[in-house]
Amino acid sequence: MGCIQSFRQCCDQPKNTNVRISLPAVCCIWQIAMIILFGIFIRYNEESDAHWIDHKTSNNISSNIENDFYFRYPSFQDVHVMIFVGFGFLMTFLKRYSFGAIGFNFLIAGFGLQWALLMQGWFHSLDPMDGKIKIGVESMINADFCVASCLIAYGAVLGKVSPVQLMVMTLFGVTLYAVEEYIILSLIHARDAGGSMVIHTFGAYYGLSISWMLYRPNLDQSKHRIGSVYHSDVFAMIGTLFLWMFWPSFNSAIADHGDGQHRAAINTYLSLAATVLTTIAISSLSQKTGKLDMVHIQNATLAGGVAVGTAAEFMLMPYGSLIVGFCCGIISTLGYIYITPFMEKYLKIHDTCGIHNLHAMPGVIGGIVGAITAAAASEEVYGKEGLINTFDFMKEWKYMVPTRQGGHQAAGLCVALCFGIGGGIIVGCILRLPIWGDAPDNSCFDDEVYWEAEEGNGSGNYVYLFFYMTLEVLIKMFL
Amino acid sequence: MGCIQSFRQCCDQPKNTNVRISLPAVCCIWQIAMIILFGIFIRYNEESDAHWIDHKTSNNISSNIENDFYFRYPSFQDVHVMIFVGFGFLMTFLKRYSFGAIGFNFLIAGFGLQWALLMQGWFHSLDPMDGKIKIGVESMINADFCVASCLIAYGAVLGKVSPVQLMVMTLFGVTLYAVEEYIILSLIHARDAGGSMVIHTFGAYYGLSISWMLYRPNLDQSKHRIGSVYHSDVFAMIGTLFLWMFWPSFNSAIADHGDGQHRAAINTYLSLAATVLTTIAISSLSQKTGKLDMVHIQNATLAGGVAVGTAAEFMLMPYGSLIVGFCCGIISTLGYIYITPFMEKYLKIHDTCGIHNLHAMPGVIGGIVGAITAAAASEEVYGKEGLINTFDFMKEWKYMVPTRQGGHQAAGLCVALCFGIGGGIIVGCILRLPIWGDAPDNSCFDDEVYWEAEEGNGSGNYVYLFFYMTLEVLIKMFL
Amino acid sequence: MGCIQSFRQCCDQPKNTNVRISLPAVCCIWQIAMIILFGIFIRYNEESDAHWIDHKTSNNISSNIENDFYFRYPSFQDVHVMIFVGFGFLMTFLKRYSFGAIGFNFLIAGFGLQWALLMQGWFHSLDPMDGKIKIGVESMINADFCVASCLIAYGAVLGKVSPVQLMVMTLFGVTLYAVEEYIILSLIHARDAGGSMVIHTFGAYYGLSISWMLYRPNLDQSKHRIGSVYHSDVFAMIGTLFLWMFWPSFNSAIADHGDGQHRAAINTYLSLAATVLTTIAISSLSQKTGKLDMVHIQNATLAGGVAVGTAAEFMLMPYGSLIVGFCCGIISTLGYIYITPFMEKYLKIHDTCGIHNLHAMPGVIGGIVGAITAAAASEEVYGKEGLINTFDFMKEWKYMVPTRQGGHQAAGLCVALCFGIGGGIIVGCILRLPIWGDAPDNSCFDDEVYWEAEEGNGSGNYVYLFFYMTLEVLIKMFL
Repeated sequence: MGCIQSFRQCCDQPKNTNVRISLPAVCCIWQIAMIILFGIFIRYNEESDAHWIDHKTSNNISSNIENDFYFRYPSFQDVHVMIFVGFGFLMTFLKRYSFGAIGFNFLIAGFGLQWALLMQGWFHSLDPMDGKIKIGVESMINADFCVASCLIAYGAVLGKVSPVQLMVMTLFGVTLYAVEEYIILSLIHARDAGGSMVIHTFGAYYGLSISWMLYRPNLDQSKHRIGSVYHSDVFAMIGTLFLWMFWPSFNSAIADHGDGQHRAAINTYLSLAATVLTTIAISSLSQKTGKLDMVHIQNATLAGGVAVGTAAEFMLMPYGSLIVGFCCGIISTLGYIYITPFMEKYLKIHDTCGIHNLHAMPGVIGGIVGAITAAAASEEVYGKEGLINTFDFMKEWKYMVPTRQGGHQAAGLCVALCFGIGGGIIVGCILRLPIWGDAPDNSCFDDEVYWEAEEGNGSGNYVYLFFYMTLEVLIKMFL
Repeated sequence: MGCIQSFRQCCDQPKNTNVRISLPAVCCIWQIAMIILFGIFIRYNEESDAHWIDHKTSNNISSNIENDFYFRYPSFQDVHVMIFVGFGFLMTFLKRYSFGAIGFNFLIAGFGLQWALLMQGWFHSLDPMDGKIKIGVESMINADFCVASCLIAYGAVLGKVSPVQLMVMTLFGVTLYAVEEYIILSLIHARDAGGSMVIHTFGAYYGLSISWMLYRPNLDQSKHRIGSVYHSDVFAMIGTLFLWMFWPSFNSAIADHGDGQHRAAINTYLSLAATVLTTIAISSLSQKTGKLDMVHIQNATLAGGVAVGTAAEFMLMPYGSLIVGFCCGIISTLGYIYITPFMEKYLKIHDTCGIHNLHAMPGVIGGIVGAITAAAASEEVYGKEGLINTFDFMKEWKYMVPTRQGGHQAAGLCVALCFGIGGGIIVGCILRLPIWGDAPDNSCFDDEVYWEAEEGNGSGNYVYLFFYMTLEVLIKMFL
Repeated sequence: MGCIQSFRQCCDQPKNTNVRISLPAVCCIWQIAMIILFGIFIRYNEESDAHWIDHKTSNNISSNIENDFYFRYPSFQDVHVMIFVGFGFLMTFLKRYSFGAIGFNFLIAGFGLQWALLMQGWFHSLDPMDGKIKIGVESMINADFCVASCLIAYGAVLGKVSPVQLMVMTLFGVTLYAVEEYIILSLIHARDAGGSMVIHTFGAYYGLSISWMLYRPNLDQSKHRIGSVYHSDVFAMIGTLFLWMFWPSFNSAIADHGDGQHRAAINTYLSLAATVLTTIAISSLSQKTGKLDMVHIQNATLAGGVAVGTAAEFMLMPYGSLIVGFCCGIISTLGYIYITPFMEKYLKIHDTCGIHNLHAMPGVIGGIVGAITAAAASEEVYGKEGLINTFDFMKEWKYMVPTRQGGHQAAGLCVALCFGIGGGIIVGCILRLPIWGDAPDNSCFDDEVYWEAEEGNGSGNYVYLFFYMTLEVLIKMFL
C-alpha cells in the first residue's frame, strides 16, 4: 500500500504544461524511428508494385480494373474522412477546445497510422519469402481502422491530457490493437468486418480505463468550460454527419469482394436510419417539455453503425439491421441520460464525449449480435458456397460449423474486452506520471494551454469591445 | 363556406409546442411499423445476397467487379452526402435555426429513406416469384432521391413547422413520390435520370403548396430572426459546395452503366460551372454598388444542376449544358430578387429557402429541356444501338421514336406538377390541424422551441458578459 | 524611367471598388464566349458518347466497367472537393474575409475549368480527324488541376484584389498553365502525375510574382483584419483536412491504371502522415512555451502532399515517402516562421496565405525528388515492362533511359519556374492598372467591400447589443 501511496504522491506534483521539449522530441524521434523501420520492413505489395504488369500476365488477370485498388479505394477515402473529419469534428462541441479536438486528433491519426502499418504488417502481411511487409490499399484501410480505436479512446480523455500523453496512449493503443486483432481474427478465427469488437469495444474500454486511472477529483474547477456554444454544436454536427454517412463504407471497406461489401453497406445504411428515429424519440421523451438535446443527436445516432459492425457482412436481413439500430438508439440515448452521470459520480470515470454510450455498449451489443447471427447461419440462407465464402471456412477451418463459429465470435468479444480494460489500466498508470505536461484541474478543456491564442479571439475580441464602448459611453455622459 | 370557416377557426387555436408525447410516439410507432414491413417484404437482391457466388457462376459473370456495387457505390456515397450534409447545411443560414435545419433534415431523411425503400420497392422491384422486394445499391440511391424531394419541400416551410408535422409531410411526400415516379418512369416511359421532374419539380411544388396552406399572416413577428449572421452564412456554404460538387454524381448515379453515367457527369459538371458565372453577374448587377449577395451564391449557383437533370444522360452536347446553366443562373437569381418577395406579398406563399427559384423553376426548365433534347434525338448522333440504349426503346417500347418520346417527357412533367400541387394542398390541409405542435407566429425560426438551450449559448453568453463588465466598470467608477 | 514612373502614377489613382458594370460584363461576355467555343470545338470522347456501345464491340471491350469513368471518377470527385471545399475553406481563416475566400474561389474555379477544358484540349486532345476536342472524365480532372494552380496563386493575393482582377488572373493563368504543361509533359516528356512542378511550382510563383507587382506599401492600414478569430480557424481546418485526406486521390487521379494509381495513393498517404508530425514538432519548438500555432497546422501539414506529387507514381518506396514528408514539414513550418516575414519586409512580397511555404518550396522539392527518383530508376526495381510503363518509354521515346529522364524532369522544373515568374510579372503589370476595382489599402481583407452585409452581422450585432445594454444600465442607475 505504501508503494501505491508514494506513486500517488509522485503523481500529484504541480503540473507544468510546457511541452516545448517533450512534444517535438517525441514527434521527431518517433518519426525517425518510423522511417528506419519502414526502410527495413515495408515494401509495396504485388498490386501496387511496378511489377504488377508481370503479375497480371502470370496470374491471368485480364484487366487493370481487377486491381484491389478499384474494389476498395472509394471505401478507403470514406473511412479516411471519418477518421480525420468525422472523429475530429465530432469532438469540437466543447466551447473552447475545438483546436485541441481537431489538432490532436490529427496528430494521433498521423502518427498512429504509420505505427499501425508496421504492427499489423508484422502480424498479418509479412512475406515469408523476403521478410518484408507488403502494403496495399487494404493495409491503409486497416491502419485507419486501428487509428480509429485510439481516437475513440481519446474521446474519453478529451480536454484532460497533453499531446505527449496522447502520443504515448497511441503508441500502446496501436500495439495492443494489433495483438488483440491478431488473436481475434487469426487465432480465434472470429469475423469482424466493421470492428464492433476489435475496434469499438477495445477502443472504448481502453479509453475508459485510462480515464479512470487519470481521474481528477477537482475537475469541477473546469466545469464551466465543459458546455458547448451554438456554433460549436454546429461544427460537431459536421463530424456526426460525416461519420453517419460514411459508416456503410466503414463496415464494408474490408468485407469480401462482391456480395460481402454490398450487403455490409446495405445493413449499415438501414441500421443507422433506424437509430436516428429512436434517438430522437428518447431524447424528446427525456425532457419535460419534449425538447431535443444536441448531445444525443450528435452521438447516439451513430450507435447503430457500431452495433452492426460485426454482423454487417452476414445475412442479418434488412429487418434485422433495423432492429439492431432501433435498440441501440434507445440504449445509447439512455446511456447519455443516466449512465454517464452515474459513472462519473460513483465509478470515478469521467467520460468527456460519452464513448461508453456510443462505442462501448453498442460495440458489445455488436459482438453479441454477430455471435448470434453467425450461430444461426444455415446453408439454406447462405447457400453452400456462400456459407464457406462468408465465414471463410477454408484451409485449416474447413470443418468449422456455424454454431461453433458463434462461440468463437463470443470468445473474440471477451478478448477485446480484456485487452481494452487491462491495457487501459496499465497505460493509465504510465500516463499518471507527472512528466507528460498535462494541464492542472482548473485549465482543462481550454485550448489556451497548448495553442497560441490568436490576436483577437472570439470572446476576447468582444470583451475588448465592451470595455471600449462602455468607457466611451461613460466618458460622454460625464463630459 | 361555413365548413371552411369552422375548419379555420379550429386551426387557429392557441399553439402548444410541447411535442413530448407526439414526437416520440410517432417516431417509435413508425419505426416499429417499418421493422414489421421490412420483415415481411424486404430481402437482399441477387447481388447483395450470399448466393451471389452461385448467381455469378450461372450467369457467366467473370469477376466480382461486375457487381453493381462497384458501378454505383461511389455515386451513392456522394448522393448520401448531398442529402445529409448538402441539404442540411444549406438550410443553416438562419441565425438561430441551425439545429433545426440540420437536425430535422436528419430526422426526415432517416425516416423517409426506409419508407421510400418500401414504397418504391412495391412499385419497381417486387419479385413476382416470392412477393418480396429485393434491394441493392440502386434501391439505396433511389431511396435517397425520394428523400431529396421531401427535403426540398422542407426548404419552403423551414422554421415554421414542428418535427411532427415534418414526419407527416414526409410520410405523404414519399408515398406521393413513389406513385408519381411509377407513373412517369414506368407508365409514361419518360426518362429522368437526375430527377428534374420527378424529384425537383414535384418536391418544390409539394413544399410550396404546403407553405401556401400553412400561410401565417402574422409572421412578421418573427421577422428579426429570418436574417443570417456571418458564420451561419459560412456554414450554409458548406451545404452549397457539397451539393454543387456532388451534383454530377446525383445526375449520373442511376444512369446507364458506361457512357450513360460518364456523359451525365460531364453535362452536369459543365452546366453548374456556367451557372456560377451568371449567378454572380446578376447578383452584382442587382445591387446599386455591385456588391454580391450571399443568398444568391448559396442557392442560385445550384440551379444548373437541377435543370440539367433530365437531359444529363442524353446527347445534350457540352455547349448545350453550358447554355442550360447560363440561363438557369440568370432566372434563378432574378427569382430571388423579384419572384420570392412577390409570392410572399401577393400569393401568400412564404418560401423560407427560396425553393421556387432553386428547384421549382429550374426543375420545370429541366423537364422542358429534356423533352426537347429527346424529341431532337437522331440515329446520326446516338448511333442505332446508342439510341435504343439511351432511351430504353426495348420490349414493349421498341416501336417508340424520339419525337414521341419528347411528348412523353412533357407528359411526365405535367404529372409531376399535378402531384406536387395537388398533394401539397391536401397534405397542407392536414397539417393545419392544431394538433401537431407547431410554433406560434412570434416563435418561428427559433431553435429554442424544440431544442434544449446549451448552458451558455452564443449571444446569451455575451449578453451576460456585457452585463457583468458594465457593472464592474460602473462600480469601479463610483467607488 | 519616365515611362515606368508615369505608369506608376497612372496606377496610383484613387480606387473605386464599384464593380457593378465590370464584374457582370466580364462574367457574361466570357461565359458567352465559352458557349460559342464549346459549340465549335468540344464533343464527348468515345467513352462518354452514345456510340460507346459500338466502340466497345469494335475494340473487343468485354464490360462497361472498363470505361475510364470507373477507373477515375471516384478520384475526380475527391479532387473536385479539394478544389472547392479544400482551397475555399483553407482561406477562410481571416476574421472578415470568409465570404471572399469561398465565394471568389468558387468564381475562379467555375470560370477556370471551362477555359482549361478548351486550352488543354487544344494542346492534348484535339482529334485530328474532325478538329474537335474530345472530353471525358480525365479532361475534367485535368481542368480541375489547372484551376488548382490559379487558386494557389489566389492564396498570395487573398483579400487584396477585386473579383475582376481574379478573373483576369485566371484567364491568363489557365492559358500559361496549358502552354507550360504542354511543354513539360509533351515536349520535354517529363512525368508529373501529382503536378509538383506543373501545378504547384507554377501556380505559387505565378501568384507570388503578381503579389510582388501589386505590392501595397501602406497595407498596414488593414493590418488589424489580417488575424483570425476562433471559429474562422475552425472553418479553415475544414479546408485543411479535406485537402489532406484527398491528396492521395489528387496525386493518383491521372496516374496509370492499376499499379500506378495504387502506388501514388500509398506514397502520398505516407508522406502526408510524416508531415503532420514534423509540423507539430517545429511549431511547438518555435514558441517559448511550446504552444502550437494554428497557421502551421492549417498549412504546413499539407506540404508533404505537394512534395511527393511528381514522384508519387514512381517506386519512391514507402520510406522514401516518409523522408520527403519529414523534410517538408520542417521546411514549410520554418518558412512560415522566418521566410514569410522576411519576404514581406525585404522583398516586398506580401503572401497572405503563405503559399511560398505550402506550394512553392515543396513544389520545387517535389520536382527535385522526382528527378532524382527517375534518374535512379532501374530494371531491377521496376521490371522491364514496369519501367517502360511507368515512364512511358514508348513510341518516339522508346530509346529513353532513366538517367536521361532525370535530366528531363529537371528541365521541366525550370520551365515551370520560368512560366510562373515571367507570367506573373506580366500579368501583375496588367493588374496594376487602376481600372479593376480593387480595394484601397485601408479596406483590404474586408468582405464588406464586395459583399452585401447581412442585417445583423456577427460583430455589428453585438456592438449594437452592448450599446443598448450599457445605456439601459446607465439609465437605471441615474433614475
